[in-house]
Amino acid sequence: MNRLLTTLLLLLTFGLGIQAQTWIWYPGDMDIWTGNRINDLRTENGAYWPAFWRNDYHYQTVEFSKNFTLEAPETVQIAVEGRYGVKLDGQGFLFGQPVVVNIPKGRHTIRINVHNMTSPPAIWVSGLTVKSDTTWMVSNFADQQRADTWWGVDGKPMFASVDKRPSCYHLPVSATHPIKTERSGNDLFAEFEREGIGYLQLNGLKGNGQINIYYGESPAEARDKGRSYLCDKVMVTADSITDLATLSTKPRLNNYQLPSSRAMRYVTVECEDGVSVDDIILQSEMKEVAQRGSFECSDTLLNHIWQTSAYTLHLTDREVMIEGIKRDRWMWSGDAIQSYLMNYYSLFDAPVVQRTIWALRGKDPVRQHINTILDYTFYWFNSVYDYYLYTGDSGFVRRIYPRMQSLMQWVEGRLNGRGMVEGKQGDWVFVDWSPDEMSKSGELAFEQMVYLRSLEAMRLCADIVGNQADAKKYTEREQALKAQLTPTFWNGKAYVHNVEQGRQSDVITRYANIFAVLYGYADDSQRASILSEVLLNDAIMPITTPYMRFYELEALCALGRHDQVMQEMRAYWGGMLREGATTFWETYDPKEKYPQRLAMYGHPYGKSLCHAWGASPIYLLGKYYLGVRPTKPGYAEWECKPCLGDLKWMRGDVPTPGGNIHIEMNRKQVIIEATGCGTGTLFIGDRRVVVEPDKRTTVKL
Amino acid sequence: MNRLLTTLLLLLTFGLGIQAQTWIWYPGDMDIWTGNRINDLRTENGAYWPAFWRNDYHYQTVEFSKNFTLEAPETVQIAVEGRYGVKLDGQGFLFGQPVVVNIPKGRHTIRINVHNMTSPPAIWVSGLTVKSDTTWMVSNFADQQRADTWWGVDGKPMFASVDKRPSCYHLPVSATHPIKTERSGNDLFAEFEREGIGYLQLNGLKGNGQINIYYGESPAEARDKGRSYLCDKVMVTADSITDLATLSTKPRLNNYQLPSSRAMRYVTVECEDGVSVDDIILQSEMKEVAQRGSFECSDTLLNHIWQTSAYTLHLTDREVMIEGIKRDRWMWSGDAIQSYLMNYYSLFDAPVVQRTIWALRGKDPVRQHINTILDYTFYWFNSVYDYYLYTGDSGFVRRIYPRMQSLMQWVEGRLNGRGMVEGKQGDWVFVDWSPDEMSKSGELAFEQMVYLRSLEAMRLCADIVGNQADAKKYTEREQALKAQLTPTFWNGKAYVHNVEQGRQSDVITRYANIFAVLYGYADDSQRASILSEVLLNDAIMPITTPYMRFYELEALCALGRHDQVMQEMRAYWGGMLREGATTFWETYDPKEKYPQRLAMYGHPYGKSLCHAWGASPIYLLGKYYLGVRPTKPGYAEWECKPCLGDLKWMRGDVPTPGGNIHIEMNRKQVIIEATGCGTGTLFIGDRRVVVEPDKRTTVKL
Repeated sequence: MNRLLTTLLLLLTFGLGIQAQTWIWYPGDMDIWTGNRINDLRTENGAYWPAFWRNDYHYQTVEFSKNFTLEAPETVQIAVEGRYGVKLDGQGFLFGQPVVVNIPKGRHTIRINVHNMTSPPAIWVSGLTVKSDTTWMVSNFADQQRADTWWGVDGKPMFASVDKRPSCYHLPVSATHPIKTERSGNDLFAEFEREGIGYLQLNGLKGNGQINIYYGESPAEARDKGRSYLCDKVMVTADSITDLATLSTKPRLNNYQLPSSRAMRYVTVECEDGVSVDDIILQSEMKEVAQRGSFECSDTLLNHIWQTSAYTLHLTDREVMIEGIKRDRWMWSGDAIQSYLMNYYSLFDAPVVQRTIWALRGKDPVRQHINTILDYTFYWFNSVYDYYLYTGDSGFVRRIYPRMQSLMQWVEGRLNGRGMVEGKQGDWVFVDWSPDEMSKSGELAFEQMVYLRSLEAMRLCADIVGNQADAKKYTEREQALKAQLTPTFWNGKAYVHNVEQGRQSDVITRYANIFAVLYGYADDSQRASILSEVLLNDAIMPITTPYMRFYELEALCALGRHDQVMQEMRAYWGGMLREGATTFWETYDPKEKYPQRLAMYGHPYGKSLCHAWGASPIYLLGKYYLGVRPTKPGYAEWECKPCLGDLKWMRGDVPTPGGNIHIEMNRKQVIIEATGCGTGTLFIGDRRVVVEPDKRTTVKL
Repeated sequence: MNRLLTTLLLLLTFGLGIQAQTWIWYPGDMDIWTGNRINDLRTENGAYWPAFWRNDYHYQTVEFSKNFTLEAPETVQIAVEGRYGVKLDGQGFLFGQPVVVNIPKGRHTIRINVHNMTSPPAIWVSGLTVKSDTTWMVSNFADQQRADTWWGVDGKPMFASVDKRPSCYHLPVSATHPIKTERSGNDLFAEFEREGIGYLQLNGLKGNGQINIYYGESPAEARDKGRSYLCDKVMVTADSITDLATLSTKPRLNNYQLPSSRAMRYVTVECEDGVSVDDIILQSEMKEVAQRGSFECSDTLLNHIWQTSAYTLHLTDREVMIEGIKRDRWMWSGDAIQSYLMNYYSLFDAPVVQRTIWALRGKDPVRQHINTILDYTFYWFNSVYDYYLYTGDSGFVRRIYPRMQSLMQWVEGRLNGRGMVEGKQGDWVFVDWSPDEMSKSGELAFEQMVYLRSLEAMRLCADIVGNQADAKKYTEREQALKAQLTPTFWNGKAYVHNVEQGRQSDVITRYANIFAVLYGYADDSQRASILSEVLLNDAIMPITTPYMRFYELEALCALGRHDQVMQEMRAYWGGMLREGATTFWETYDPKEKYPQRLAMYGHPYGKSLCHAWGASPIYLLGKYYLGVRPTKPGYAEWECKPCLGDLKWMRGDVPTPGGNIHIEMNRKQVIIEATGCGTGTLFIGDRRVVVEPDKRTTVKL
């Protein structure tokens, strides 16, 4: 019975069967609109800094429609975000904007036209049997599609009541007090227990004058007046308070909450002569989402790393998944795919993954690579299949598939004569930040690997949506490109960095070699060679960003180097903790000194100290030490290959769509208890043990 | 000196040389946004009725930039519609949203990022030398284009001061009192002197209760409670007044102006028990634009027709040119091209033509025909060349040309195997409303004619923008299609209606034959045959809409049948005046009886009684009786072939970009005085007289 309820919850959560009533809108539009809204929050020095790629928008005018038959007359309530008109059965319009419609028994067609410039047209319809759900159709007057909904966290739909208007959704706010404040002259300097994001509130305002606020992720930044990355200025007069960054004015109040959310752990509030502040609080803005994953072990440093990683990810898991809370506050496809993977091992916040995938993709026609970056387009494809593998949500694949098709068609229009991808005019070939210049021209082995993986994702998703022509096409393209990889790029020991004008480069970088391991493109002998000649070879340019280190450490795990990876985690992430980090950083080089290490992109405090890609231990510990991963979509089947390394014991939970997989392991035994998923296989050395769900399985070592 | 001033005014008006300071924005965006705003004003029964085609939107985030050198330091004021950030010389952002920037002497780059969801991002920059004008660049972060401005009416730029914010532009409003009011029971019935559009104002509200307002273009409509096309309902309580159509509430006032503009000549204000109104006025909303064209003659009926036509056109010449003020209040490309032509002979409101052309076109990618109608796409191309011919404004052609290219490429992707256009899935093949069914399938001769004319427009515009490859391509396509016309559609006497599966239809309709004459595709013997076998042949299905009658009458003029056309004008437009019309109608059939003749589209009052296409006598009288037309763009050269018909005398003005061409003619002489244009040629019988500008030319007959 418990399992039945879990299954129902699962169905509800992912909309696989039951049609639940929610607000509805044009597919993807709420996501794209939300993504734009969040991307637009970036500021530097209080100034608006937009993302530098082309944005798409929600359709401002759409028509919702439904055919239905009533056994009895029905009174239907209508609520709309936007200006609207209602037509019943092809008759003339009902007067004005009706909020209640009485419908007689019989067959009917209802049409609701909605216009909304500032947020996506959305409707809520509520009768005994006629309800807004995904059985409605919606048209932008060019393309007709099935209406979409934005499913909520943890199976509790966010917009499943009339008063939960989609455009009004905001993350909740709660007051956080500083742990320490000090005054010197006109300055109030405050420190919070850990980094956070939200709205600073000035309490007990007295007098008139200007107040300057300098935020910092570090004490140095908050104390460096006029150079902190984030700042605010407020003008207090007898009658009013004006925020000088947004030029918005409010009547004078005793306590004033600033209108712009800012990331901070430290803050200096500088009161110019004539004005003063009693104290401050942070109205902290964070998503309410359960921490379903867990990890605990005999090493308190690793526990601290896991907790700090989880907090870092939680801060960046917002309306959409952003890359950093101070800067850029943007969705980056390459960062996002890592956030998604970490998320599957902690929050299992599936709706935010959908939303970020829609928002990154935007609408047709495709005009640029996602974020303008060649590689980021390919990560986007791969993120769709990852999502399906972890959640089993084929409905989402069906909805997004047309935009996968059009993006892939655009990519195909830019292939070179050998069917390979190259950076073209306007493309940013990123790969990774690296201290040494690396070539970005010609055919990069790395780019072909991520492109090949995208073809694989297309083939798999074409199968899911039942598009046989596409499945055949992408199988052929995948095979053709796969057959070229080794002849083109393998030099006998490793994949070289690139090929220019048909000539193999002499340069070997780690990137392509890492992905050849991760994606299974290298055979056993190649894997052995990659390990010794590249990954363990100090002569090869090292990876310095946590971004690419994510893949490097995963490749080392995949090659069985768990012990080495655990030591790396202790050294690298432990190093940041020793420096006092409460969230993980964008980059970390133990050799750099404070405060110089805070600089990045030409700004003395440009580096982000709460960066999603810093949280990768969540993923590594969940997938390679607790050792759990789905082998069929949505954990219909799964495996567990636990690895204790040098630990005395570990325990933890890996969330699945319908429950959790709980693992406890010490030197003597492994205990697994999985709820709400399919059958698992536990691998212990050469042993394979079947793990039935909703039962406790104990295996002696 | 007078001429120099005129020339300067001309340059200013069309931005051909002098860079004037105005608000600036992304090219076309203010036009597209304005077009959407106006299209969205349609209601029926107080309910929102959106246009049923796909809309494009303004870019919400753009970056304005300019490189410049200052000889001395300068203080620059900045005003922005939207949220913004300012960067100078690649330094970090200036704090917040600066309204004043001090710039030192030397070379500089300024960048202003702007975000605005509700109206196009727009900036006003004002320093001694640094000003917002069309020398700035603007980018949507995917396509970089030169900043565009929305030029004002009559050379007075609408947005040439900081307080004239583009998004705040609205037509002016002035009070109009009814000429007659009568009360019966709770009803107040009012009649205005002539049809108008604006906001009804209820004066002297007393008591509480609901007020129902029924508007009418005819007394019958305004008296037919609950069936009038336009209506409003207002709920008056002790504290507030709520407009029930928009659900907007205001505090209780003595006088209440309704929030929605409505067309009306008559109105019934029905006060339910407990509430009353002293009187009403119409806050009439009309564009302030000079009536530069004129026509007067010895026949008072023709004078009345010209004046009523001019008033009809003035009512529909609004922010953009709409087709009717009661219904649909939309831009329709086929209606618009006629409005433009009438406009060139009356208001000469060039900015509204630009704006309507941009707004009809929207953005790339093309997804549908303009208004979903095959023929309307082709009228759109032709309207661009017409605009250039009458105004000489090549700058506009350069700005719009990329969207001509992409629309034509889309058309070319849908040609059939013989290089001809046919209606495809989702296309509306309109041609004309006709009482008898006509075939819309296969290759319609009419559609090939308007397509061929579009190829001609592409060729001409490619020449203007200096795109030689396009000029060559479209010359070839034009020649190829032209060569096919007669072999495919001419049956020896006339062009047949269509060809299906290679077989010429037996049906002859007037459409293709009219356009073959107008566009010069018929040779002299064909023209003679078309006149006798089609245009003067009562056995051929007659034209019943003023829309297509526009072209039919023009074709008759082109074939020298001026006397017949003048009689037609007296009969048809004179007929409407005898019925009491104050504006001209969407359709008119003298045989139909009142009030049945008010019905259209299944609604008893569906017919529009103020319809732009009803105003065509302006065009016919200006072009074929005053006889003036440009022979080189912008009246650099022009001709006058006056035709007095049966009139004793006539006089009038035809506006040109830089002045007016004034003509007076009686049986004894012709006098012409042209200012601010090039040299003209007066044709009198076989005589040709050169008309120098800014001099009075008198020719004895």
